[in-house]
Amino acid sequence: MGKSRLEAFSDGVIAILITIMVLELKVPHGAGAAMLAPLWPVFLSYVLSFVYLGIYWNNHHHMLHATTRVGGRVLWANLHLLFWLSLFPFATGWLGENHFAALPAALYGLVLLMAAIAYWLLQQAIIAAQGPGSLLGHAVGRDWKGKLSPLFYLAAIPAAFWHTGISLALYVGVALLWLVPDRRIERELGTRG
Amino acid sequence: MGKSRLEAFSDGVIAILITIMVLELKVPHGAGAAMLAPLWPVFLSYVLSFVYLGIYWNNHHHMLHATTRVGGRVLWANLHLLFWLSLFPFATGWLGENHFAALPAALYGLVLLMAAIAYWLLQQAIIAAQGPGSLLGHAVGRDWKGKLSPLFYLAAIPAAFWHTGISLALYVGVALLWLVPDRRIERELGTRG
Amino acid sequence: MGKSRLEAFSDGVIAILITIMVLELKVPHGAGAAMLAPLWPVFLSYVLSFVYLGIYWNNHHHMLHATTRVGGRVLWANLHLLFWLSLFPFATGWLGENHFAALPAALYGLVLLMAAIAYWLLQQAIIAAQGPGSLLGHAVGRDWKGKLSPLFYLAAIPAAFWHTGISLALYVGVALLWLVPDRRIERELGTRG
Amino acid sequence: MGKSRLEAFSDGVIAILITIMVLELKVPHGAGAAMLAPLWPVFLSYVLSFVYLGIYWNNHHHMLHATTRVGGRVLWANLHLLFWLSLFPFATGWLGENHFAALPAALYGLVLLMAAIAYWLLQQAIIAAQGPGSLLGHAVGRDWKGKLSPLFYLAAIPAAFWHTGISLALYVGVALLWLVPDRRIERELGTRG
Repeated sequence: MGKSRLEAFSDGVIAILITIMVLELKVPHGAGAAMLAPLWPVFLSYVLSFVYLGIYWNNHHHMLHATTRVGGRVLWANLHLLFWLSLFPFATGWLGENHFAALPAALYGLVLLMAAIAYWLLQQAIIAAQGPGSLLGHAVGRDWKGKLSPLFYLAAIPAAFWHTGISLALYVGVALLWLVPDRRIERELGTRG
Repeated sequence: MGKSRLEAFSDGVIAILITIMVLELKVPHGAGAAMLAPLWPVFLSYVLSFVYLGIYWNNHHHMLHATTRVGGRVLWANLHLLFWLSLFPFATGWLGENHFAALPAALYGLVLLMAAIAYWLLQQAIIAAQGPGSLLGHAVGRDWKGKLSPLFYLAAIPAAFWHTGISLALYVGVALLWLVPDRRIERELGTRG
Repeated sequence: MGKSRLEAFSDGVIAILITIMVLELKVPHGAGAAMLAPLWPVFLSYVLSFVYLGIYWNNHHHMLHATTRVGGRVLWANLHLLFWLSLFPFATGWLGENHFAALPAALYGLVLLMAAIAYWLLQQAIIAAQGPGSLLGHAVGRDWKGKLSPLFYLAAIPAAFWHTGISLALYVGVALLWLVPDRRIERELGTRG
Repeated sequence: MGKSRLEAFSDGVIAILITIMVLELKVPHGAGAAMLAPLWPVFLSYVLSFVYLGIYWNNHHHMLHATTRVGGRVLWANLHLLFWLSLFPFATGWLGENHFAALPAALYGLVLLMAAIAYWLLQQAIIAAQGPGSLLGHAVGRDWKGKLSPLFYLAAIPAAFWHTGISLALYVGVALLWLVPDRRIERELGTRG
């Protein structure tokens, strides 16, 4: 089974999610500056989610680059990841519209947590499909970022009910952590090539 | 005629359908937990339709993988399938918004039935285009799943007016039946390769 | 310049247009059969436009299949075609919502006319890019369908103000004319191959 | 790292943005000609933004055609460009709905300016990734269009508060400047080939 359609389908879904999110930034009916003021939280949560979806697309790109074999399990693990990513527009819109209130901030963390778990499951499915000693299995290595992120999300969810600022700081922090691209695969490719 | 654009176009349409469905999950205006309660049926019908579109994409992927020749009849049979799939967001939204009422549940079954028939027609068109003794013709074999599913949908449509729970159970049941990926084509490829 | 990105971009736009049109089929708030009745004209105009976009995708697919060279003029002629196709959702929604009233029926014809002209311009740009004696130039031949369709649209636009039924019959008739796939290119390929 | 997924993802996002903008052209509820009148400014700003996104797609296409190596920095520079392009539907809708009022016209210019800067950054990242003496580095040359456009946008933003017509004339003027396709890369390819 080739991986090209898996890549194309995932690219399509992530591209649409990124652009659908911007629809939450509803065009105001007046032309005054006062009309833009209530849109700031919506805009900021859009930026955060854009960065997260960009990170997922980027890492997905790198992971599949190191993949040669794709089977039924990988296809479904990928759809499972896309399912949780598809909830980003809803979670982002709810967070922005309510100016970072407690419950929306917690739900946003839950969607991030589920997407992180789904990504990890996909990674495991791909490693299993490649067989032992594969490039990807080696490149992933100890994967401290992948293990740390869910812990941060798990901490951020209850923290939202205490002080939303902590949750948001954690979401932004994890995003910054990942913005540094995953060099492991590029490095491994360089070593072997 | 190459099959790559057929795949790309179908991927595009299915990717957009899957993400457009999530727009029915409308962002509530308040931040309270009570705001999420009425969204449960919309969310559950979204999950069901996501799984169905995932199954269609998966099977479409497998079927075209075993395809070499594509002609005018296949292109139109494919567009016909995409037409019925394009009604998923409407049927899903109506089902969810009315908390699984009788008529929306029946209409949902009708859309499932028509999509199943369209998929079968596409399969026949592809087999005809490959010529006798093709890989796909052999792999499809007796195709008990493809024959059984429309019968379940046919039963679920009238059942919706008696008790909606039966229809929904049938829809979920058929989805579970198909979640097991179509191993016939992978097996056939393994035997021949 | 390769043609693959031109194909991919056009596929993307047409796939999105087809699925965005279905959003005009708004989910009714009640579950009764009476709720579906006012949706019939919207549904029928959706079917008509789906078929038209399917025809455009199909013919575009065939035309580019016979294309080898793509330059700046072709890229812009293609964007020009996509522009007119992008007005399909608006024209379709207006036609359906107003139950096939005169002005919306005329505007629908205008969009069809402009798209037909844009398609013809794209065809000319591609033939020019291939150089004389190309496969496409030969295959297109006298192109009676391409010349007849704009005349029908031209007749249908004023006819809408006299009796809308005539315009609609013309739109359906031209669609049926084109549903027969463009065999010229396939035949030409067969002769040369 | 291959560039095909980068192209496919960018094509997807731009294709969706172009088609999502048309949703701002809301279907009026009556069938009279008077219903279309208030839509003119929305339509005109749609045309302008369609042309701008077409120019970006076209130039992106040419630039990546001359690209062989793509790394992490290029991926993120590309996402950064897509972010600013994703604000086109909002800026276009606000401009059209308010009949070219001052603040929306200034904001439109700001989005154009940021997109132009993001495109320039992407170009620099790609040139850096190709190494010195590359085809692209040579083809871009002095790049007077790329340097002139931001200056025009910078002038158009404050001008909007004095007279909106000046800003709009500048936006249309820069679009016309770019409509002439970027021949530098085609020429360079012709010289070297």
